[in-house]
Amino acid sequence: MLPPPAPALLQAALDEATRAIGLSEPNPRVGCLLIDAEGREIARGHTQQAGGPHAEIVALRAAAAAGRSVRGATALVTLEPCSHHGRTPPCCDALVAAGLARVVVANVDPNPLVAGRGLARLQAAGLQVEHLADSDWARAARELNLGFFSRMVRGRPWLRMKVAASLDGRTALDNGSSQWITGEAARRDGHAWRRRATAVLTGIGTLKDDNPRLDVRLVETRVQPMRVVVDARLETPPSARLLQPPGRVWIYHAVDAEAPEHAARAAALRAAGAGLTRLPDPQGKVDLAALLAALSQEHAVNELHVEAGHKLNGSFVRAGLVDEFLVYLAPRLLSGGLPMASFGPLRALDQSLDLRFEQVDPVGEDLRLIARPPGRSQF
Amino acid sequence: MLPPPAPALLQAALDEATRAIGLSEPNPRVGCLLIDAEGREIARGHTQQAGGPHAEIVALRAAAAAGRSVRGATALVTLEPCSHHGRTPPCCDALVAAGLARVVVANVDPNPLVAGRGLARLQAAGLQVEHLADSDWARAARELNLGFFSRMVRGRPWLRMKVAASLDGRTALDNGSSQWITGEAARRDGHAWRRRATAVLTGIGTLKDDNPRLDVRLVETRVQPMRVVVDARLETPPSARLLQPPGRVWIYHAVDAEAPEHAARAAALRAAGAGLTRLPDPQGKVDLAALLAALSQEHAVNELHVEAGHKLNGSFVRAGLVDEFLVYLAPRLLSGGLPMASFGPLRALDQSLDLRFEQVDPVGEDLRLIARPPGRSQF
Repeated sequence: MLPPPAPALLQAALDEATRAIGLSEPNPRVGCLLIDAEGREIARGHTQQAGGPHAEIVALRAAAAAGRSVRGATALVTLEPCSHHGRTPPCCDALVAAGLARVVVANVDPNPLVAGRGLARLQAAGLQVEHLADSDWARAARELNLGFFSRMVRGRPWLRMKVAASLDGRTALDNGSSQWITGEAARRDGHAWRRRATAVLTGIGTLKDDNPRLDVRLVETRVQPMRVVVDARLETPPSARLLQPPGRVWIYHAVDAEAPEHAARAAALRAAGAGLTRLPDPQGKVDLAALLAALSQEHAVNELHVEAGHKLNGSFVRAGLVDEFLVYLAPRLLSGGLPMASFGPLRALDQSLDLRFEQVDPVGEDLRLIARPPGRSQF
Repeated sequence: MLPPPAPALLQAALDEATRAIGLSEPNPRVGCLLIDAEGREIARGHTQQAGGPHAEIVALRAAAAAGRSVRGATALVTLEPCSHHGRTPPCCDALVAAGLARVVVANVDPNPLVAGRGLARLQAAGLQVEHLADSDWARAARELNLGFFSRMVRGRPWLRMKVAASLDGRTALDNGSSQWITGEAARRDGHAWRRRATAVLTGIGTLKDDNPRLDVRLVETRVQPMRVVVDARLETPPSARLLQPPGRVWIYHAVDAEAPEHAARAAALRAAGAGLTRLPDPQGKVDLAALLAALSQEHAVNELHVEAGHKLNGSFVRAGLVDEFLVYLAPRLLSGGLPMASFGPLRALDQSLDLRFEQVDPVGEDLRLIARPPGRSQF
């Protein structure tokens, strides 16, 4: 029986996983640390771009490149190694073939159809297998992949609603002025959160008012999130800036794109590279629950980053679909203006949307707050 | 030349000063630590109730009661010892008579007419005098007494505006429901801030809607702040709860209290124990700048705690009279409702009231934010 890995080694594997943000989409962010019997690091790696090697393979290759033996070594992996042939061969087989003695994992694969098969395969091959469930390490590795876990477990993305507002809760003046309520550091931080997301979503109102690009510009990234527009009546102008490269754009609408009054615009949008999907609800709007299911199942969206106006925000709230608020509060009062999310009017305080503050941090002169509905962290 | 006092001793004097909160109004919160030549504590004390002994006297008496000699000792005092005969004899004389060798002070008296006289008097008597200006100690001692400094230097109180709101900035639903947006811990914390204040102010709108008591109940206190109502048309019902004991109540109005339509009500309010002062502005409202001057000069108000509705809050903002916002943010969204302060509409973002976050702390499930206009800390 080998001793439990030192906390610093577990943290190193987690740090490595973090480096897969903005790179591995839609694959989970996984880190792997190979250590020898004395607990010294041999090599490390993290998941590469989709279709590229997983963390374990990167670490094994790094060890080989350094001429280091991994025979009898331990692999610390933040997620159960895969046991199936996807775009790459199973990592389990590679670990067995390399002669490892032990594998320690933070979490098992959240997909109920495969969970535990990787560990079973390793055990069957004679490796010592440890699953550090309920550890801080496991929780942190899960938090890093909450979008992936959400997609696997719930069949929908983790919906993060980003809001930039004044201390008195206004996202814009009544005349629409909103550039800029928060400071440069908060805007850059906002792009770092966009980078985490598989897709960034907005509504036709914001698209018409602000004509945003919704890409990741203020921080470096290897992949650009897909852009998604909720546009019930198919009013997106083919000249909209978010239709420019980089990356894919998908428009969800409610009207019939082949109806005479929409066909020409639909054709122009398709010609501009946008995908179109019709998902009407009974009120003639876009069915938001169906939209999330589609993003998860058809576009493998893990984290969905919503930057929309108060009406669409309110519709997501009313549908109970918001998992997290990412709020930047600027130290200023605007007196009046546009609200964060319109889902009222409420008749009593117990009709409010109740949240819990998860994180509060200064970002430049502003504050960043992360708030979630209680219990939402564990879906 | 004696060595500089150890930071722990300076902090002990400051801690002692803090104990005068809710006790020494309207006198400043001052702490005194007596130490011997080896830097060991002999005794300590803080300012007592108005008319009672100051910190230095309390410490000297504590030393005498313990049978400890203070000859050749050092006094660490968070504010320059007084040199004038007020309700008590000058502390300077007592320190000289006791045979102290040295006095170290954090700040000189902020009253320009007396500043430095105490130190000069001590020096003339042969004591070694040190003023640790620009030290963290001095800043902390000044912050503890920002209301007293404001009154002495600016002739008006430090105006702290307390707001309890949802994360989206609403202090009540449109139907007025506001009990309770924040939690028990935040409400108790709010009473601790009321306790700091010489006076708690509200407007006639809040008085009619909520009929608040505005006293300190949820934390212990030795003194109750005075209650102040801004009530232009003298509409305060003589049955209002804040007219009940404990403590004084003052109503500032704009109409003529002796006019036939107001005389009966004015008499009833006076009979209920309220003081009345007429301070009309050209628009027939209460002149808020004059109100602050009156509170400072006639009622010795150091910190003024404002708990009012968005209209009166907005009037204070528009007049540029708010020194600090004390905001409790609850982790919930209300969608719509009443705002924090109405001073708009703004036509451009650069018309916003710009603040700086000074402190952010969790209080129960809520967040407490302290924000001030930039530069306002140094008046």
